[in-house]
Amino acid sequence: MPVDMSVPPSVFEGPAFNRIPVWVQQKLSPLAVQKIQAVYDFVENEVIPREQIMRNQIDSRRWSTPPLMHELREKAKAKGLFNLFLPIHFDESPGLTNLEYSCCAEVMGRCYWAAQTMNCHAPETGNIELLAKYCSEEQKEKWLKPLLEGTASSAYSMTEPDVASSDATNIGIEIRRDGDEYVINGRKLYGNCLWNKDLSFYILMGCSDPTNEDRWKRHTMLIVPCNTPGITQVRNLTIMGYDWAPEGHGEYLYKDVRIPAANVILGEGRAFEIAQGRLGPGRIHHCMRLLGQCERAYELALIRCTDPRKKPRGKLIGEFDSNIERIAQMRLELDAARLVVLSAADTIDVRGNKAGKRTIAQSKILVPILATKIIDECMQMYAGQGLTQHTPLPEMWTYARFVRVADGPDAAHRHQVGREEMKTAPKFQQRYEEYTAKAKILTEQYGFKYESFD
Amino acid sequence: MPVDMSVPPSVFEGPAFNRIPVWVQQKLSPLAVQKIQAVYDFVENEVIPREQIMRNQIDSRRWSTPPLMHELREKAKAKGLFNLFLPIHFDESPGLTNLEYSCCAEVMGRCYWAAQTMNCHAPETGNIELLAKYCSEEQKEKWLKPLLEGTASSAYSMTEPDVASSDATNIGIEIRRDGDEYVINGRKLYGNCLWNKDLSFYILMGCSDPTNEDRWKRHTMLIVPCNTPGITQVRNLTIMGYDWAPEGHGEYLYKDVRIPAANVILGEGRAFEIAQGRLGPGRIHHCMRLLGQCERAYELALIRCTDPRKKPRGKLIGEFDSNIERIAQMRLELDAARLVVLSAADTIDVRGNKAGKRTIAQSKILVPILATKIIDECMQMYAGQGLTQHTPLPEMWTYARFVRVADGPDAAHRHQVGREEMKTAPKFQQRYEEYTAKAKILTEQYGFKYESFD
Amino acid sequence: MPVDMSVPPSVFEGPAFNRIPVWVQQKLSPLAVQKIQAVYDFVENEVIPREQIMRNQIDSRRWSTPPLMHELREKAKAKGLFNLFLPIHFDESPGLTNLEYSCCAEVMGRCYWAAQTMNCHAPETGNIELLAKYCSEEQKEKWLKPLLEGTASSAYSMTEPDVASSDATNIGIEIRRDGDEYVINGRKLYGNCLWNKDLSFYILMGCSDPTNEDRWKRHTMLIVPCNTPGITQVRNLTIMGYDWAPEGHGEYLYKDVRIPAANVILGEGRAFEIAQGRLGPGRIHHCMRLLGQCERAYELALIRCTDPRKKPRGKLIGEFDSNIERIAQMRLELDAARLVVLSAADTIDVRGNKAGKRTIAQSKILVPILATKIIDECMQMYAGQGLTQHTPLPEMWTYARFVRVADGPDAAHRHQVGREEMKTAPKFQQRYEEYTAKAKILTEQYGFKYESFD
Amino acid sequence: MPVDMSVPPSVFEGPAFNRIPVWVQQKLSPLAVQKIQAVYDFVENEVIPREQIMRNQIDSRRWSTPPLMHELREKAKAKGLFNLFLPIHFDESPGLTNLEYSCCAEVMGRCYWAAQTMNCHAPETGNIELLAKYCSEEQKEKWLKPLLEGTASSAYSMTEPDVASSDATNIGIEIRRDGDEYVINGRKLYGNCLWNKDLSFYILMGCSDPTNEDRWKRHTMLIVPCNTPGITQVRNLTIMGYDWAPEGHGEYLYKDVRIPAANVILGEGRAFEIAQGRLGPGRIHHCMRLLGQCERAYELALIRCTDPRKKPRGKLIGEFDSNIERIAQMRLELDAARLVVLSAADTIDVRGNKAGKRTIAQSKILVPILATKIIDECMQMYAGQGLTQHTPLPEMWTYARFVRVADGPDAAHRHQVGREEMKTAPKFQQRYEEYTAKAKILTEQYGFKYESFD
Repeated sequence: MPVDMSVPPSVFEGPAFNRIPVWVQQKLSPLAVQKIQAVYDFVENEVIPREQIMRNQIDSRRWSTPPLMHELREKAKAKGLFNLFLPIHFDESPGLTNLEYSCCAEVMGRCYWAAQTMNCHAPETGNIELLAKYCSEEQKEKWLKPLLEGTASSAYSMTEPDVASSDATNIGIEIRRDGDEYVINGRKLYGNCLWNKDLSFYILMGCSDPTNEDRWKRHTMLIVPCNTPGITQVRNLTIMGYDWAPEGHGEYLYKDVRIPAANVILGEGRAFEIAQGRLGPGRIHHCMRLLGQCERAYELALIRCTDPRKKPRGKLIGEFDSNIERIAQMRLELDAARLVVLSAADTIDVRGNKAGKRTIAQSKILVPILATKIIDECMQMYAGQGLTQHTPLPEMWTYARFVRVADGPDAAHRHQVGREEMKTAPKFQQRYEEYTAKAKILTEQYGFKYESFD
Repeated sequence: MPVDMSVPPSVFEGPAFNRIPVWVQQKLSPLAVQKIQAVYDFVENEVIPREQIMRNQIDSRRWSTPPLMHELREKAKAKGLFNLFLPIHFDESPGLTNLEYSCCAEVMGRCYWAAQTMNCHAPETGNIELLAKYCSEEQKEKWLKPLLEGTASSAYSMTEPDVASSDATNIGIEIRRDGDEYVINGRKLYGNCLWNKDLSFYILMGCSDPTNEDRWKRHTMLIVPCNTPGITQVRNLTIMGYDWAPEGHGEYLYKDVRIPAANVILGEGRAFEIAQGRLGPGRIHHCMRLLGQCERAYELALIRCTDPRKKPRGKLIGEFDSNIERIAQMRLELDAARLVVLSAADTIDVRGNKAGKRTIAQSKILVPILATKIIDECMQMYAGQGLTQHTPLPEMWTYARFVRVADGPDAAHRHQVGREEMKTAPKFQQRYEEYTAKAKILTEQYGFKYESFD
Repeated sequence: MPVDMSVPPSVFEGPAFNRIPVWVQQKLSPLAVQKIQAVYDFVENEVIPREQIMRNQIDSRRWSTPPLMHELREKAKAKGLFNLFLPIHFDESPGLTNLEYSCCAEVMGRCYWAAQTMNCHAPETGNIELLAKYCSEEQKEKWLKPLLEGTASSAYSMTEPDVASSDATNIGIEIRRDGDEYVINGRKLYGNCLWNKDLSFYILMGCSDPTNEDRWKRHTMLIVPCNTPGITQVRNLTIMGYDWAPEGHGEYLYKDVRIPAANVILGEGRAFEIAQGRLGPGRIHHCMRLLGQCERAYELALIRCTDPRKKPRGKLIGEFDSNIERIAQMRLELDAARLVVLSAADTIDVRGNKAGKRTIAQSKILVPILATKIIDECMQMYAGQGLTQHTPLPEMWTYARFVRVADGPDAAHRHQVGREEMKTAPKFQQRYEEYTAKAKILTEQYGFKYESFD
Repeated sequence: MPVDMSVPPSVFEGPAFNRIPVWVQQKLSPLAVQKIQAVYDFVENEVIPREQIMRNQIDSRRWSTPPLMHELREKAKAKGLFNLFLPIHFDESPGLTNLEYSCCAEVMGRCYWAAQTMNCHAPETGNIELLAKYCSEEQKEKWLKPLLEGTASSAYSMTEPDVASSDATNIGIEIRRDGDEYVINGRKLYGNCLWNKDLSFYILMGCSDPTNEDRWKRHTMLIVPCNTPGITQVRNLTIMGYDWAPEGHGEYLYKDVRIPAANVILGEGRAFEIAQGRLGPGRIHHCMRLLGQCERAYELALIRCTDPRKKPRGKLIGEFDSNIERIAQMRLELDAARLVVLSAADTIDVRGNKAGKRTIAQSKILVPILATKIIDECMQMYAGQGLTQHTPLPEMWTYARFVRVADGPDAAHRHQVGREEMKTAPKFQQRYEEYTAKAKILTEQYGFKYESFD
């Protein structure tokens, strides 16, 4: 029965591949197979055994990138594991499709900082794609190249405290043209922390033409170097109490911040053109990494289930059939979610970003909330210890919870999908009218009286 | 970006194909594309407009197959739409893979009796596959051929009132060898109704060797012609009040029922060998048909959402954002469930039934309960009218609810998956011990004290 | 520690009382204690053992009230169990508070037709309360008295097929004054079935003044005798396939139906004044009866859990800890729901209907959906048999599902509660501004800089 | 209709009382009314406006009790708000019932550290009740009195890392008698942090007789002064990343820790006698405080719903009907949960601790998980800001999540309730057999054939 594949099926029995659905396995190029295995080996052998070291270095240095990160980035780059996310149709791409990279992203997700070692972390990935798509050659040379080489680091600045920025047309920070410069005034939230000295520049979305009749043309994107005078970090915003040093999430004040006009991306008033393209693949990456986290949480749950020291009422935790059912349900929901995200990635690869819009939104709705639920259940299996630093679960939960609001809360995405679906109603209305018309005739032909319920 | 496919992508924009995920579209042979379209046309044009006629004929004739069913079966057979479910590796197959047929099955599900018009209904499909796999040539000629040609009709008899038959080793009806015959004594539930005169024979699972030390060798499968003396239908069992005439679900008494020894399948004590292979693809069919039902329920919900007569508080039902979110959530859950089932079908096609065991069980856990939930929400959108014969939703809900217990309640399937997963724990336990061993060495190398939480 | 009570605590250990929360037990008058016990004895000894008889009589006589119902009503009346629902402040009341009657209603709910034997069934109860409150003495003599004595039977007619009648201002059936008569034209849904010859009259809500600027004054309530010419029952509406004979639920056509002007209740345009008072206690009765149903479903689940014939994988169903947890969760949710409904009843008794508005809506949101969930889980514990006539669970589920849309779907009630809650926001807004104002001053006094997050 | 009450109903319209159900309002003594109001005033005026100050003092002093705590404790004591939790039947009680104190506890819950200002915080409350119940007069003088006066501070030490301590019979830390002393060896988790210099002593549960045939007699409770040599705090355990300074949660090593034999409570081997009585009321306090937290979260949600700056798609957040429904659902679930907990408190007051066992367990199952759900939804309404220090919601969620595992995970409590319920099955089995016996006779009397489904 098996269908021919370029890679022998036995390869897929290994731990780097055995969660990947068969249809995806069949689509993997030999290059992808090699990269997935390499990412897996790197995460398992280089990253995870250094988790405590990273924690200790962060604790002791706070707002500067720990040496271990630099060290591992060098290693990953040397192994050809940099920028794998950049899809095959970009000149700068290492050659994977979105689908193929998704399999890498899941593996990276096993440790929350692993993606950064391979230059595949948010918001870098979105920024790189944005700059690759929309910048002039000159801008690319100046801003994109260092990001790709890992010698610079960037952030993305959109959310604002004063408006509902999940609806981006509300964004209000003022961008005013003044000669050869843009002047920025206002407040922003998030975007990595200015206190981190390794951060090079922001991509900022602001309002340059608030009275334009076309609300999709009021906004502009600018490249803002971090050391520009006038930017103050008011505070670091904790996420569920975590400060996420050294990246962090800041609250910023912009007071007469002056940026060269050359730093505008694509042109004034074209922010929405850019924004549209930015987030699709990034959402897929986020979701796949969360699934990688979930798999690790799941493994920890299985380990607890069979821990011989933990025997309430004389049975292993995993001998309680309620836990057997919980494990089965988690397995099912993780596998289903993975199919959704991979299908979104594949749709983009085959039919383009626009065709994948719905499935991407669905991934974003489904995965973060599922991840918080699953990690929470795994913590619960560890009882009291589940909430402590005994396991990485609390950090993992917090990260998943954060992704649930990043790029807009899930209700915003449900609205988007739901509104599109509502537009399809007339098509069905018409089809059902056709059924009825035909049924009326046929029913009488068969000798029955047609019953109308309208 | 699009990848080559044998079928032009525009084909997939039509209503017969547009819910099919891109990766599945890419796997469809030209034959499959043709069959899916033909099934769609048949269901939309021949079946759905005749729903009231079918209901009226059933109401007036009760326990005999309505003439309309015979008529449509002739039509479907003539159009080459018979037995599509039988996978390509069988000699008798019309040539579709499980994955390809799954797309047909979803369309058939749009009307609960459509599959029968194409000889693709349960339990016929399971029985046909079973007979094709395990019968002698002689038996095939006698029992299988008429089923394939649609001139005979069969049922499957497993459940019993006196034991927990979700665990089939409990099955207790007595099968005793007596010379050239088997003698059956005991009680059974379900299996289509004897009152239906069109039913030809049962495949019955019973206990022939209750004291065999190997509990997997105690049971035997027999072909039991319906007109064998000694079988009494005690009553028809309603399902949520529906009698499901003319098929129905009976409760039966077997008193000294004598069957020729030639009617044994595969041999005495080999029932579990057979049972193992029987249900896999059948569960996929069930699930895909339920998804077809759900899509129809969903269409009805969209129609209600935009019904201009229904404006509580002055807004269309679909203008309430809570309903927009509900629609989005249904869309998401349906799409996710379809991916799970199609992935199960594909796994069977590519790697064989055993490899698909987990995903099939996952489909069976996920889809029926989801279908009841979604159809219930659609009914709720119709408020009071949703529960009446105004729409087909109540029957659809009932059917989905039935599938949730057919082939074992979902807890049984969760147990099966969960127990298999628990067996993987030692592998992870070992991996985590390796992390720890490595981390201890590395952490000290980097100058930190290793923290153990054990 | 125990506090004095008029009734010795040991009384409350019996099965008629042991689900009643302690605080409610303490509020029961001796009369109430006597009535609850009598209702319990009647249901257990007279009603439940006759369930099959009732089913058989209905099956054989269809659309006329079965003799058993008349027989049991005579018995109940003779025992002083008629009209217990009518609260103590009505002249016609047998003397129970809403809280006390609620305890009776739960017991009545154990069999879905038991309330009718005690003249405590919907819509009779709502109609009796309505007539007792709003009718003239003359009207009471003619219409109310026979209802109280059980010699007449009534229905309530509000829902319409052509509008969203969950928002009653949409009700559109035309009521036109013509001399000494009102003329009615239009369509209605529900309200018990005209085919039942025992039905005496309807209370109908219609639109008499569609252009009145005050939308709360456009509607009128009329008493409509069933035998008035011009009313046609188009069909009986099934509920999830059940026809609920002999009461049923009709779809009606009103064509020039003429009613004496004397049949108007309270006066033209005053329907909303009446409607407001009608449904409160009736919703509580519905909910308590559903809880009685749930308790019976729960008992059936416990029985299945300990059925020695049902041992999947060698254990009783109740030995699986997942089922132990399910039972605990059901117990918890039932007990919580009962507290909500009883608290609503008590609030009405102590503070009046208006004060209880929110808790009544909460009961209506909570209980029907919970009841469908719990009964569904109990069915699932019976696996295949759970859906058949093996137990009364399918009918119970259907009844609970119906109550979920009766008196408006639960979303309508959530909206009502939610909108009221939103109105309380400014009060909290102000309180939080006061916190802030005070905190600013204090924080500086303690020597810290006040941090504002606005 | 209103019933007499000692307190005029208008009192209950104020914010300190308006969430209290009517039946509870009616049970409040004038003293209780006065105390609830005083607690409310203290929390609103003294505590909440000082939240930032407390945070700042903790941040700057870490592991010692902040001066503000001492200051507010003096104030609360002076106002007669100390030890309100100690129920009326204790000599040392300020005179409230459990029900009455529950209303105070909810108010205290509005700020997570408010209870401590009134000496009503865990684990102090449980320890005080334990010492008051089980200590000798001498012990009381030495250990209880300072706790009641607030001059000493205690912890409770039960959980262990090496066993499943949710089943307390597993507790394994060694207690060995040696002359006039007990010697303790082993490990413990939780119990407030030793690093806090204000902590005076632990009550420790350990294993003194591991081979006793009666497993309920193997354990002993000891009073362990914090400064006893041999106790090491290995680390502070964070809870979801929070260190909860200055109390914290430690991991401890006991190495030959010697305690005077006079410090044994009740006697060797009697730990379970004591433990049984300890946790009941404490669980009620925990739950009521969580409800107070939830109410505050709910108020914050309402405020966000009406924040004029936050208008996605042009509407206030509270104008989206999905949020209106969410608010209604939260309101409902909070009100239902409060009824459950208050009913548990009342049951204890009226019928004693044992009678309240089930409702206490139900409270513990229901409230913590509900609180995490509700607070999570409130955070979600704040989108990104909801996870930051913009609101107290993240800390509140974390606290609720902690309570879900404190005193055993909710599955343990579900098991306890479920097992007790299963024991009631035979009673129902018997009742249903009686129905059947009676029905058989009656059905034949009415002329029908009795149908058995067994």
